[in-house]
Amino acid sequence: MVESELYPLLLQSGFQIPPFSRFALNEPLEIDFYPIALKIESPKIVHKSDVGGVALSIGNADEAHNARTQMINRIREHNIALSPDDGFIATAMIQGEELFAGVVDDPIFGQIILFGKGGVLLELYRDVCYIDIHAGEDEILRALRTTKISKLFEGFRGALPCMEKIVAFIQTLQNFIQTHPDIRECDLNPVIFNPEGLYVVDARIDYHQTIPEPALTPRIRHNFFDNRTVAVIGASNDPNKVGYAVAHNALTFSGKLYLVNVRGGSFEGHTLHSSLRDIDDTIDTAVITIPSEYVLEAIESLIPKGVKNLIIVSAGFKEIGDTRSEERLSALAQQHNLNIIGPNCLGYYESIRNLNLTFGSSAINKGSLALIAQSGAVLSSLMDKASQEGIGFSHILSAGNMADMDFADIITMLSATPECEAISLYAEGIRDGKAFLEAIRRCPKPIRVYKAGKSPQARKAAFSHTGNLSGDYPMFRGLLESVGVKMVDTLEALLYAKSFDNIAIITNAGGPGTILTDTIIERGSGLYSLNERDIEALDAILPSNWSRNNPIDIIGDARSERFEAALRCVDDMENVDMVYLLITPQMMTDTFDIVQLLERPWKKPIFPILLGGAMMEEALRFLQEHSKPCFTTIHEAGAFL
Amino acid sequence: MVESELYPLLLQSGFQIPPFSRFALNEPLEIDFYPIALKIESPKIVHKSDVGGVALSIGNADEAHNARTQMINRIREHNIALSPDDGFIATAMIQGEELFAGVVDDPIFGQIILFGKGGVLLELYRDVCYIDIHAGEDEILRALRTTKISKLFEGFRGALPCMEKIVAFIQTLQNFIQTHPDIRECDLNPVIFNPEGLYVVDARIDYHQTIPEPALTPRIRHNFFDNRTVAVIGASNDPNKVGYAVAHNALTFSGKLYLVNVRGGSFEGHTLHSSLRDIDDTIDTAVITIPSEYVLEAIESLIPKGVKNLIIVSAGFKEIGDTRSEERLSALAQQHNLNIIGPNCLGYYESIRNLNLTFGSSAINKGSLALIAQSGAVLSSLMDKASQEGIGFSHILSAGNMADMDFADIITMLSATPECEAISLYAEGIRDGKAFLEAIRRCPKPIRVYKAGKSPQARKAAFSHTGNLSGDYPMFRGLLESVGVKMVDTLEALLYAKSFDNIAIITNAGGPGTILTDTIIERGSGLYSLNERDIEALDAILPSNWSRNNPIDIIGDARSERFEAALRCVDDMENVDMVYLLITPQMMTDTFDIVQLLERPWKKPIFPILLGGAMMEEALRFLQEHSKPCFTTIHEAGAFL
Repeated sequence: MVESELYPLLLQSGFQIPPFSRFALNEPLEIDFYPIALKIESPKIVHKSDVGGVALSIGNADEAHNARTQMINRIREHNIALSPDDGFIATAMIQGEELFAGVVDDPIFGQIILFGKGGVLLELYRDVCYIDIHAGEDEILRALRTTKISKLFEGFRGALPCMEKIVAFIQTLQNFIQTHPDIRECDLNPVIFNPEGLYVVDARIDYHQTIPEPALTPRIRHNFFDNRTVAVIGASNDPNKVGYAVAHNALTFSGKLYLVNVRGGSFEGHTLHSSLRDIDDTIDTAVITIPSEYVLEAIESLIPKGVKNLIIVSAGFKEIGDTRSEERLSALAQQHNLNIIGPNCLGYYESIRNLNLTFGSSAINKGSLALIAQSGAVLSSLMDKASQEGIGFSHILSAGNMADMDFADIITMLSATPECEAISLYAEGIRDGKAFLEAIRRCPKPIRVYKAGKSPQARKAAFSHTGNLSGDYPMFRGLLESVGVKMVDTLEALLYAKSFDNIAIITNAGGPGTILTDTIIERGSGLYSLNERDIEALDAILPSNWSRNNPIDIIGDARSERFEAALRCVDDMENVDMVYLLITPQMMTDTFDIVQLLERPWKKPIFPILLGGAMMEEALRFLQEHSKPCFTTIHEAGAFL
Repeated sequence: MVESELYPLLLQSGFQIPPFSRFALNEPLEIDFYPIALKIESPKIVHKSDVGGVALSIGNADEAHNARTQMINRIREHNIALSPDDGFIATAMIQGEELFAGVVDDPIFGQIILFGKGGVLLELYRDVCYIDIHAGEDEILRALRTTKISKLFEGFRGALPCMEKIVAFIQTLQNFIQTHPDIRECDLNPVIFNPEGLYVVDARIDYHQTIPEPALTPRIRHNFFDNRTVAVIGASNDPNKVGYAVAHNALTFSGKLYLVNVRGGSFEGHTLHSSLRDIDDTIDTAVITIPSEYVLEAIESLIPKGVKNLIIVSAGFKEIGDTRSEERLSALAQQHNLNIIGPNCLGYYESIRNLNLTFGSSAINKGSLALIAQSGAVLSSLMDKASQEGIGFSHILSAGNMADMDFADIITMLSATPECEAISLYAEGIRDGKAFLEAIRRCPKPIRVYKAGKSPQARKAAFSHTGNLSGDYPMFRGLLESVGVKMVDTLEALLYAKSFDNIAIITNAGGPGTILTDTIIERGSGLYSLNERDIEALDAILPSNWSRNNPIDIIGDARSERFEAALRCVDDMENVDMVYLLITPQMMTDTFDIVQLLERPWKKPIFPILLGGAMMEEALRFLQEHSKPCFTTIHEAGAFL
């Protein structure tokens, strides 16, 4: 599309464009908006600059006339014969900050807007944000604020605040795309920003050959989290089999449980039914642990039992290249409105009826956090760590290959489940980004996400692992943050749901206190400021050379009595929302006695950090045996904030 | 200084400036270098723009004439009476990329050059680097390459490569500053960069009222690391006293050791001398642990004994406000050419004669790493961790208040000491930045630095802790990186000296393998690429569904036999320089047996990562008891790279 066709389209779509005029090849250049840029327009010339077909900063009619003459000569020198249909376009040169707006049709997220600093700096600084075409105003603002250039729009150094103009521009672009669903790629580059507004100066639009089909509306699903009658298909007495661990963990279920194994017999005192026909009951939920070749058949026989939910632990589907069986799973789910988790997963846990259908840890604490993970190994590690640190869950879901239920479905269901108060998600790749974003938008609970596969090298590894697209990390992070997700940088941070803004540090060492302060600030959390009353209270119980500042350095010779007194003081400070107890091994430090203090009831959450090695071992072991969280490096201690 | 004075100064100093002319108030504007900027020049007008005293983009003589007339009118409207001495300056408008160069006189580093992207983006993107005025070409290049804008100078997207022009510009600026040591602050802003070169378009220079005194040349010191006769002043039998721990640790010394305590008696079977007069020997080195009020007196009495090196462990000097005693310490060191470490420090260790004069861990392994720390607590934590993980040291130095020897002195001495092959430094604040940089420049050994006090909040904490300036972190990091230091982000990374570029990962879990890959790439290290022969070798011993890629995913059901076979294969791959053994707790994982493999002799360094909690405890304990490093989170495992 040449500019004289493009400009009317942009104008009609609500964009501001610079004044322009089109002239036939020999038409007099009558222009009243100098300075201008003059460009050749001819279907024979794609790259105008290459043939000298662009002249900039033309200040008056004489210059324009000369520029045209020279341009025709230059083009002639390139052996291009201009015809009477060709012509020139003159556009007003607009001064201002060069911005960029674009649209890509991402394989995961669909049509997404990119917006940020333009020109050569676009590539150098990559100061762009990502905005979904369905993003509301808040979401647009959150995305814009991740860019540094947005400070200009918010009135940086006396600039006129104009965020609403930028938002309106983005909304115009959203409308434009929604009325052109066949846009494959679009560059509005540059967009010039000045106090009068945003001007689209140049544009390039690529269309799909065919209009993509609209996404299917998501299926109305049964509630997954209401499991009263459960069957374990493949319960096994062989402790090396997954079917053993799942059946064993399932025994704590407070609803009705049926164990099934074609060979019959018994399992830890419970009947092993050799066939589903033997069970004279409906089955809400089944977990399947048998070899993959029998899975589809098992599902067929579960359907007459009224099964609604299936957890397919069995591996051997898409991840080893068998996409056909996996497609049949999806089709069955569609056809019979089943909720299927897996295949190739670690299982499922819900706290409400103490239902542990995983082959992970058997010691799961009840809590209010739902943990979803795409990797069974990540999940089993986190479950193991959580059990050691006394962290509890409302739900644990191993998503596996996501043949049917994907993250969007799971988040949607968790949104409506009162037992779950926060959601943590480990993701490698996702399929339908638009549905994922929409599920998060509708979810009223805090969500944390760790995304693996940030580097190209890792994406290669992830692909060989799951077969899902792993995507562009900055886009993933940007879009998720714009819908309010907290992106975390360590796996372990998924085990914590709360953020803290008024942290107190009690320590016997100034240096490490400084480092922890740095870490807290880097993570975007805040340190509590001691007020005069706080300082008075601490003065009364601490040696005179304490820091009189937070971090509260209670001095290297502090023993458990002083730690206790300081802890009591800080626990009483109304606005402190969390306490780090940062202990270094100094000559007289009785670390073991200090950590015993954590067994007492305190009002605030207290996280001990034991900095050192052998001298800290006994105390560390005490905390682990009493299922208390404990950190051994400052970095780790700050990573969950 | 007005522009018509500044320009000749810049020109004469070797900078390129745009063509310019100065005109008296009513002189005809004869200019042959349009387009121009026209500006008023009058000592009465400081902020020209505020009174309409600047006109840009003037294209010809008519416009220039009109601009001058309008400018005079505008200034008159501001009630400023122009006098015949006032005038105009016309400067050619130069097109190009807007850069910034500046000089600050930093309280720590002295005169330092800042260079980077200019204009409003300077503040938004802070894409600047820091260059010492004594930096050589390599150092300048290293600094420049930390900026994103430098890609433009290296030929980004078809730009003309021109790094040497930029370096020459920096060198011109270095010369300019060295011939103007009284510059307090200087902004060359903007510097316009285009294919013709770099043009300083505007400049502002502030001078010190008085020319700062040149820095003292460093004293020629005795070698600290040659200690044959050592005295412990304040050796004590009271196990709660520092003098006990120091004396106890000192007993392993293979040279001559004297223990001194005014009360006399004996210590663990050794004589306690009640006075130095009782000792009929010279003393090379003394460690002092007595209360601060007796320290100066003790030093006076050591001087007749020929003492050269002093380690003052005693606290109670500058850190509690007693700057007077601390100054007397410095004066004594100057006067008698003593090397003093401390006061307020944890002590000193050197491997060569097994000399442990610390009150930290008594179990220090010999090695080739020198560890210097400004915080005793950080040092004792790291020593404790090192002893647990079997990491050894050539020297350990607790710098304390640095009344005499500072980091520069210590690094200079370590440079010449063959036992030390690498240096790790924990710094809170430094005094003489120029000497510090120079010591690092001359040191042929790899140096790692962790800097505490990055955030303003932490700097407040650090200040109350040490009394040293904590400085601006980006400048500190930039300057240190330009002299080749590796800045690390965790304390624990100080325990490792080597970097790795060809890492292999052996794991029983794809997801965590992906995360570790991300971590390695983020840290700037590299993953080894398996070649065909490697893949063949692994094919022969692994199940068919292994990843055939590094991370080498040997599949979730791997037991120690398969781990061992994979480890053997990888240990034989010539170009692998390090192996991570990433173990997750899966149903059949015999972690305890797997970690036993690490007791065998392997060619490559192997670092195990045990991801999980309770299920990993036994294996973790085994590794700790056998003094092997071990990580429990992926993040921690990657942090030392």
